[in-house]
Amino acid sequence: MEQRALQAFFAPKTVAVIGASATPGKVGNAVVANMLAAGFKGRLYPVNPKGGEIEGIAAARTVGELPGGIDLAVFAVPRDQVLPEFETLAGRGLKSAIVISAGFRETGREGFLLERRLGELARRHGVELLGPNCLGMMNTAHGINASFSASQPIKGDVAFCSQSGALCVAILDWARGENFGFSKFVSLGNKAVLNEADLLAYLGDDPASKVIMGYMENVENGEAFVRTAREVSRNKPVIMLKAGSSNAGAKAASSHTGAIAGSDEAYGAAFRQCGVIRAPDMASLFALAEAFASLPLPRGPNVAVLSNAGGPGILAADACERTSLHMARLSPETIQRLQADLPPYASVYNPVDIIGDAGADRYRKSLETVLGDPLVHAVLLLIAPTGMVEMEATATAIAQIVRRADKPVVPCLLGRAHGGIGRDILRRAGLPCHAFPEPGLRCIEAMYAYAQWRQKPVPVYEPPRRDLDMARRIVETALAEGRQEISGFAARELLRAYGLSTLDTTLARSSREAVAAARAFGGVVALKLASPQILHRSDVGGVVLGLAGDDAVRSAFQTLTNRAARLRPEAEVTGCLVQAMAPEGAVGVVMSMRRDEQFGPLLMFGLEGVHSQILGDVSHHLTPLSRDEAFGMIRSIRAYLLLKGLGGEPAANLRAIEDALLALAALAQDFPQIFEAELDPVLANGDGAFVAEARLTLRT
Amino acid sequence: MEQRALQAFFAPKTVAVIGASATPGKVGNAVVANMLAAGFKGRLYPVNPKGGEIEGIAAARTVGELPGGIDLAVFAVPRDQVLPEFETLAGRGLKSAIVISAGFRETGREGFLLERRLGELARRHGVELLGPNCLGMMNTAHGINASFSASQPIKGDVAFCSQSGALCVAILDWARGENFGFSKFVSLGNKAVLNEADLLAYLGDDPASKVIMGYMENVENGEAFVRTAREVSRNKPVIMLKAGSSNAGAKAASSHTGAIAGSDEAYGAAFRQCGVIRAPDMASLFALAEAFASLPLPRGPNVAVLSNAGGPGILAADACERTSLHMARLSPETIQRLQADLPPYASVYNPVDIIGDAGADRYRKSLETVLGDPLVHAVLLLIAPTGMVEMEATATAIAQIVRRADKPVVPCLLGRAHGGIGRDILRRAGLPCHAFPEPGLRCIEAMYAYAQWRQKPVPVYEPPRRDLDMARRIVETALAEGRQEISGFAARELLRAYGLSTLDTTLARSSREAVAAARAFGGVVALKLASPQILHRSDVGGVVLGLAGDDAVRSAFQTLTNRAARLRPEAEVTGCLVQAMAPEGAVGVVMSMRRDEQFGPLLMFGLEGVHSQILGDVSHHLTPLSRDEAFGMIRSIRAYLLLKGLGGEPAANLRAIEDALLALAALAQDFPQIFEAELDPVLANGDGAFVAEARLTLRT
Repeated sequence: MEQRALQAFFAPKTVAVIGASATPGKVGNAVVANMLAAGFKGRLYPVNPKGGEIEGIAAARTVGELPGGIDLAVFAVPRDQVLPEFETLAGRGLKSAIVISAGFRETGREGFLLERRLGELARRHGVELLGPNCLGMMNTAHGINASFSASQPIKGDVAFCSQSGALCVAILDWARGENFGFSKFVSLGNKAVLNEADLLAYLGDDPASKVIMGYMENVENGEAFVRTAREVSRNKPVIMLKAGSSNAGAKAASSHTGAIAGSDEAYGAAFRQCGVIRAPDMASLFALAEAFASLPLPRGPNVAVLSNAGGPGILAADACERTSLHMARLSPETIQRLQADLPPYASVYNPVDIIGDAGADRYRKSLETVLGDPLVHAVLLLIAPTGMVEMEATATAIAQIVRRADKPVVPCLLGRAHGGIGRDILRRAGLPCHAFPEPGLRCIEAMYAYAQWRQKPVPVYEPPRRDLDMARRIVETALAEGRQEISGFAARELLRAYGLSTLDTTLARSSREAVAAARAFGGVVALKLASPQILHRSDVGGVVLGLAGDDAVRSAFQTLTNRAARLRPEAEVTGCLVQAMAPEGAVGVVMSMRRDEQFGPLLMFGLEGVHSQILGDVSHHLTPLSRDEAFGMIRSIRAYLLLKGLGGEPAANLRAIEDALLALAALAQDFPQIFEAELDPVLANGDGAFVAEARLTLRT
Repeated sequence: MEQRALQAFFAPKTVAVIGASATPGKVGNAVVANMLAAGFKGRLYPVNPKGGEIEGIAAARTVGELPGGIDLAVFAVPRDQVLPEFETLAGRGLKSAIVISAGFRETGREGFLLERRLGELARRHGVELLGPNCLGMMNTAHGINASFSASQPIKGDVAFCSQSGALCVAILDWARGENFGFSKFVSLGNKAVLNEADLLAYLGDDPASKVIMGYMENVENGEAFVRTAREVSRNKPVIMLKAGSSNAGAKAASSHTGAIAGSDEAYGAAFRQCGVIRAPDMASLFALAEAFASLPLPRGPNVAVLSNAGGPGILAADACERTSLHMARLSPETIQRLQADLPPYASVYNPVDIIGDAGADRYRKSLETVLGDPLVHAVLLLIAPTGMVEMEATATAIAQIVRRADKPVVPCLLGRAHGGIGRDILRRAGLPCHAFPEPGLRCIEAMYAYAQWRQKPVPVYEPPRRDLDMARRIVETALAEGRQEISGFAARELLRAYGLSTLDTTLARSSREAVAAARAFGGVVALKLASPQILHRSDVGGVVLGLAGDDAVRSAFQTLTNRAARLRPEAEVTGCLVQAMAPEGAVGVVMSMRRDEQFGPLLMFGLEGVHSQILGDVSHHLTPLSRDEAFGMIRSIRAYLLLKGLGGEPAANLRAIEDALLALAALAQDFPQIFEAELDPVLANGDGAFVAEARLTLRT
């Protein structure tokens, strides 16, 4: 992983604040004050044209007065002063910079050009530059708060990286209330130089950061992000909140940042493939960061619910089954031990109900018993604020157990006033604590999914065997002829060069053409009505299968076209497709590829027709594609059971479908000239997968 | 609506506490202390064998010393004393009672029998009885807290009714922290006499209760609940959290209450049909109650998002599009006015970004502008805690606007420490306030759905025309013959008596039988392979359509059975179904009826095959069924588009499908002897809907 040397940036020995101010409330004052409050041990140089003292430090009047080779310069001057001052410092060996000043790309063309020049300057002088238009950066381990934030974060294990300054202040405000600490805190701003991939690479190697959480509206470079994120996720969890997942949101995001974001399907695929944990909303981003930072990963999906009340226990069981987790089946030993320890009306099955009069001791004992059960991988612990709850003692006892447990225990303290007392104790112990069961279970679910991803072997990308010479000939011919797409015979030839089986198909405009085509294909053929207006042929009886011999073909052609003329007089009938007979018992699937603006070739897989077009039951993957990942694409559609085989019926040949997906992925990588590809349908049965129709769009 | 006279129960003039105690911490002490703390104005009679004073009131030694005709007696004595004391008081004109004491049905057979006797006693003497095994009851308007709760609720507009005591304490604890008030608060306990339907009927007419919220694990009487809830929901929102929606939860719930709960599909249908707002989880129950109690209902689905920060605005737009609401398109006038009022870099499109330096005045002005837009039906207002936010002033200004607006405005104050200040101001103004956009949007969504439900005309239930004599003959014949099901010819006859079209079908065991059947049906027929092992006939080419003439039928029979023998040698082939030719271009749907243990006949509708069996794309409805509701069942499956018609193709005859559903509903109501019915498939095209196969199970 290529990595920027951000040592001077995150752990500077000398920091200059350009535009420092003695007036409280001004950004240039806040930065100096924050640096001091954070306990910065190095040399701090405020710069202000008026000179004088700022927060007790003598200010330089110009950047020219500063020593050369400053580690970090923070710019809080009006936009038009940024470039000249930056250039002066850069010429004198400046190592890194934060441009807080706004007024750049986000304000229109003039700002955009200025920002580009700033970026060029920084690159030319080798200055690592954060921003412009950002809140700043904090590094709690090094006593740095180079930001104008109103609050000082406490020290912790979580690094945060955000494209939105507002999210930064909201998160700092939230963290202050929750006793939640940060290792590094970075507001990316307009990303003129440093972007999320650069930060991710650095934070991935940063021993002070156990978890990385972030907010993004777009990535600057999809490929770099994927490469970096995949590597970092193997070592530590990366949790991302991506804004702009909806149409309305994406429109707002692109006008907000002025950047091309790429499709949400592509982000989804990128996150999934890289093991990045996608937070569905702001609340989850916080909850997930807390859980990952303080709890061990579960080694399996089985959850035990432990509660002092029946109703909440049942609600937790309901919530558990709405996730991909399971309610654990307790072992006989656990049940015996619980029976021995608990009063007679307790419920010793999962959800375990230790009844409303449970004190700290009963909680402690039952939790230890349940944690000791090898069939239990995680525990959701509920406390309803009954009159008999010893809230302080119970929360304290739980905190001790949770901290040394090798399985995640998520405490949920219901209620606000009374429950809040216990929550504070747990929070002070650095543990997550929820007010309701649902968010706790969603954290366990995400942790288990991440644990599974991390256990997966690193994917092996082996290009399938293919006849590249032949493939190149076909593509180049099409390009030379000025075609916009490859379809029909040429498309099937191209796919055969990638080792795929295809079904011969041709359009016959007359019964005579149909008979000739059937002879050419040899053997049994199918006839399918061809009309742009008739989408579902079966609805007008527009398909006849199993035709052998000239007579059968001729008469079927006439029957189909006549029937269409009678039933859909308004439809224009082009003729009939003659197709070598589909394999028996085949299921039709579709697979396609289109190039995402940010992430490159994006593959799609689903069942043909309604399933993919209306029900949206499809899966996505960014190239490259391994065989395991191809199987993952097949397995993750809802209709997978249909392919796998039901009620004793033979399954489709999944390996052949994988082969087709692998070929499509290779094709996309071999030929950047192919912009989109659609194999629809591919007919799959127990014997293989046969491409019936294919169309490839060329970049023009 | 039949209704219990609960006047003496909720607004008693005389209250006796049986088992009152002078020892703090005891339940019998808490009840007396709570009554006094609540400011009870009537006569309070503590009863304790030792006599003396309890909380400053002289105690009676036995219930015999009490005056006759007590309005409300609260029992906090050991279980075995409850019945004798209750019988004495009941004999002396007791009007109502709360049995807090536990040890009844929830503990096993002995307790169950005692509880049954207690219920019988109460009914015989006309005593309204709450419990046993409950927390008690509170009525803030009347200064009553007849419970052993540790906290006193404040006065408010929301009635709460819960089957779980733990939920009661959790909600009281939460409400205390949120400044949330209650009108009435009822812990139902084991529901020996009073149940949710009784309370619902009373609270529906209670002018002090604007919103009713509840928690349930089961209903005592499905029919009474549906009847009452439907009527009450027309007047005020009823919000329910139902536990036991999952298998694990349902199992735990049934062992918790010992009651038969009915299926979750039936609860879902009951809630939907009655306009009951189903809270998906505990957090939503609270949020929904707050929103419904304090905000007007939206008159449409269009939401405007107003924010002082870009990122959170985009996240809110994303969250909005995940609901059934829409991001409003602002009118040109609104956009002009915003442009005039806001600084140049603000975004005047939805989400509206009034930028981080927005103070109270800018918030007030923009909110008023957006609220004035006729295209906006609701507003989500976001405040990110930037340094420039005037939190107090802004929250105060917003509270004023929100309280007098005729559209719902949901404020979301991000962050915890700083945001909390604003949230407290809004809460003190009796307004809901969220920390994140998502829950706020889900509240608006639920409010709009409820507004739509309330606008719907009251369904008109008209039984379809049917030949009841003929239907009765068929059912009675089957019963007389000791059959367990009606299928084949008799089933089709029965459905024809309900006006449905059917397709003649018969099983032919030989080609000769097939030919005879085809002749009898007249015209063109289809042959379908019949084998219990082959579920998907098309996979073995097991269907031939459009057969005319003896030869065609004979040869098709042989082809089908031979092919099956070759392809699936292990399958037992019974023969072929001969079926009058299906209508052209038909889509296969399924509809079924089964009797739910709690709610009676539950109808199901979906597309045949994978769609309903694997993808679970089905809708449910409890009888009776109106034509509008039948259309609702059809429209609410995902694959509805397929029936409605795609790409210019003719739609299925929806009216004919409605007719079939209406007939099935009538059949279920006419014949309680029919336990289950399955019409699978019903073939629908533009001309009509034709029942191809039907099977009705009889109660044996």
